[in-house]
Amino acid sequence: MPREIRLNAFDMACIGHIQQGMWTHPRDTSLHYNRLDHWVSLARTLESGLFDGLFLADVLGIYDVHGGSPDAALRSAVQVPLLDPAMLVPAMAAATAHLGFGITCNLAYEQPFLFARRMSTLDHLTQGRVGWNIVTGYLDSAARAMGFSRQMAHDDRYDLADEYMDLVYGLWEASWAPDAVRADRAAGIYADPARVRPFRHEGRQFRMDAIHLCEPSPQRTPVLYQAGASDRGRQFAARHAECVFVNGGAKAHVARLVADLRTRAAPRPIQVFVGATAIVGRTEAEARDLLEEYRRHASVEGALAHAGASLGIDFARHGMDEPIEGGESQAIQSNIEAMKRAAGGVFTKRWLIDRFVLGSRQPPILGSAEQVADALISWSEEADVDGFNLSRTVMPEGLERFVELVVPRLQERGAYKRAYAPGTYREKLFGAGPLLAAPHPAAARRQAAWG
Amino acid sequence: MPREIRLNAFDMACIGHIQQGMWTHPRDTSLHYNRLDHWVSLARTLESGLFDGLFLADVLGIYDVHGGSPDAALRSAVQVPLLDPAMLVPAMAAATAHLGFGITCNLAYEQPFLFARRMSTLDHLTQGRVGWNIVTGYLDSAARAMGFSRQMAHDDRYDLADEYMDLVYGLWEASWAPDAVRADRAAGIYADPARVRPFRHEGRQFRMDAIHLCEPSPQRTPVLYQAGASDRGRQFAARHAECVFVNGGAKAHVARLVADLRTRAAPRPIQVFVGATAIVGRTEAEARDLLEEYRRHASVEGALAHAGASLGIDFARHGMDEPIEGGESQAIQSNIEAMKRAAGGVFTKRWLIDRFVLGSRQPPILGSAEQVADALISWSEEADVDGFNLSRTVMPEGLERFVELVVPRLQERGAYKRAYAPGTYREKLFGAGPLLAAPHPAAARRQAAWG
Repeated sequence: MPREIRLNAFDMACIGHIQQGMWTHPRDTSLHYNRLDHWVSLARTLESGLFDGLFLADVLGIYDVHGGSPDAALRSAVQVPLLDPAMLVPAMAAATAHLGFGITCNLAYEQPFLFARRMSTLDHLTQGRVGWNIVTGYLDSAARAMGFSRQMAHDDRYDLADEYMDLVYGLWEASWAPDAVRADRAAGIYADPARVRPFRHEGRQFRMDAIHLCEPSPQRTPVLYQAGASDRGRQFAARHAECVFVNGGAKAHVARLVADLRTRAAPRPIQVFVGATAIVGRTEAEARDLLEEYRRHASVEGALAHAGASLGIDFARHGMDEPIEGGESQAIQSNIEAMKRAAGGVFTKRWLIDRFVLGSRQPPILGSAEQVADALISWSEEADVDGFNLSRTVMPEGLERFVELVVPRLQERGAYKRAYAPGTYREKLFGAGPLLAAPHPAAARRQAAWG
Repeated sequence: MPREIRLNAFDMACIGHIQQGMWTHPRDTSLHYNRLDHWVSLARTLESGLFDGLFLADVLGIYDVHGGSPDAALRSAVQVPLLDPAMLVPAMAAATAHLGFGITCNLAYEQPFLFARRMSTLDHLTQGRVGWNIVTGYLDSAARAMGFSRQMAHDDRYDLADEYMDLVYGLWEASWAPDAVRADRAAGIYADPARVRPFRHEGRQFRMDAIHLCEPSPQRTPVLYQAGASDRGRQFAARHAECVFVNGGAKAHVARLVADLRTRAAPRPIQVFVGATAIVGRTEAEARDLLEEYRRHASVEGALAHAGASLGIDFARHGMDEPIEGGESQAIQSNIEAMKRAAGGVFTKRWLIDRFVLGSRQPPILGSAEQVADALISWSEEADVDGFNLSRTVMPEGLERFVELVVPRLQERGAYKRAYAPGTYREKLFGAGPLLAAPHPAAARRQAAWG
């Protein structure tokens, strides 16, 4: 019997997320990214397919490496314009009962006291269905938007992030005791002041002396996602993350990465999600036709603007077959290494275009429902991943086809749930909760405060 | 024919907003403040009563003046626990089509680039139904939560606020041209890069060099509310505010304040909303019975904790009939002046309890539907106010009674609309828009950039 596969939709509050240019397809509805009904409809489709979650990406700057300007990103709508992902969640939560929401938020620029309240608010309003994908950013354009000259250095960002996590754990876990809220109408007592304490912190980057504004939410700390692939990033993930998002590559490489992450996090269990793009037809031939049809709408310029920013490479300066050696300062270094590995040591613009136009670091998973289900199960078995972040192709048909065709096959194979488990997002994912347990540092913080 | 009266519900994402203790009433549902269905239901009731808006208050610290501790506030649930008000809006917007949302946000601690994106996101998702109540905060407990020792001085906060407004106007109005978005599927061009520019700012408090992440939303700049009553606050309101919230007092005093605000803002029109509490019965006797019933659930300690914080007075140290002279450093100075004026020069704890337990600076408007409608119309005529921010009493019956009984009487009197006007929040309120027009500084910013 195969293990149970987890599924997230991987999306973003913008027109072009991963598969650039799909918005030009006549059946695509991504231009409605700024309408609530668009997102409510997506959430309902996901819940009808028993998806575990909707994983919402975010980025706080504009991709301006390609051609040395933001022009390509603006022209092709590559993650700009871009809305605040957290604001989509309350309307989707009101229309669903089980779907989880993983929200990317860059802690480098968010006031921790206000951010902690925002996440607690969402955890209350969704009745415990919120996750946070912790990122520290990498774009100089974001730094300049915030009034700085450039990004902090990579490892310094993770040091800041460690301190930030201490702060938000303090607010979420240590400020209100489990029994602080009495809500006693007859006595006129809502909270017992003896069971609510200020959290105090004096650190290298932050100071705080505050009672958390929110009473404990169902999960207190949201389900923690992280995606760092560098050594320092994995060290951070091992300490904090419950779910890790691994962004593609060859199966054998992902298997090694997963093994390393599990070893580092032990004895804490972590769940690993790998990014994937699925294109499914009633037959393999239909799927191939669909891919060809979609590719006619793909944006090469958009793909280069997107890949160029995360690699720090201005592809406008490179010939199609010229070997590309490395990126510049603001890139995600692990992305460059992954690219070289995927291309067999050296990669070219031609290789990248072929791979990134309707794909990403690995080619799309393509075929009949049976073939796609097989591919997902083999990934899960061979690379030891728990689930997939499925990127948007043509909306909504890409997702609707997946729900209609692939989900029943996975269920028949015993690799997918037939109903949601009860409880919060954490309970659904881990069968335990709703609060973080030892030896997670958030649990340690709670136990130190309240026993 | 009386003028058309505007109505906002005045509420907050907490259990005890203005009328402390009402949550202990057996019919009150405020304990559901952390459930989406509670807010969706409120929004639907407001829209059924053709309310112009829901005005959501906020505060970023805890009231800790009374007895020198936050104990009274926690016990009586006085604006703590408190959720992030912005997060309530998307679900309410999805359930309504016309209701406006005025969201309080303290600019002193919000990263301007991120805040601008959040408001633009809400303006997109609500299709132009968002307002922002600009506040600068006054609590030392908030400053300590953010890592500072104490609040900035009063007038310095307004200087910071002026610079902050320049920044957000730059992002909202000057970064994207009116014709920047083409959304041309055939050509594969979403935005014209020549019509999108970074906004650059180097000021005393802030630096920024950024393209706004959002394309222009229906209103670009949200409808701007402000509530400053000091001289510096009124100067700020005269420059920026479209709507001003005046927090009670005697009719003659409010009339003078309104005249001063209109003179300062001229030739810009402003709309003035006055805070009010209405208790309505089918007869005057029924209303009086209701008031007596509600008062039995009022919290004296809660009222003192709330008033004490905004006055900077620890009422725990004062006898019932001892004249109270003035407040301490962190108070809203104009509140103390208003209190003395309301009490005839000197006020006591006994006077304050009588006034603040189910009331505020002025006593509740009480009576039959006819009497309440008369009182509102006479306020509108004699004090020259445009509308009311009606505070929550017992939820939802206080509001439901108002919609059922008072709204039809106001309509019969020709003092209230019979249907919503078309368009955005700004167009509904002012019959013009959706964008700010000259001589507002936001319009000047847009016109300087794009003509």
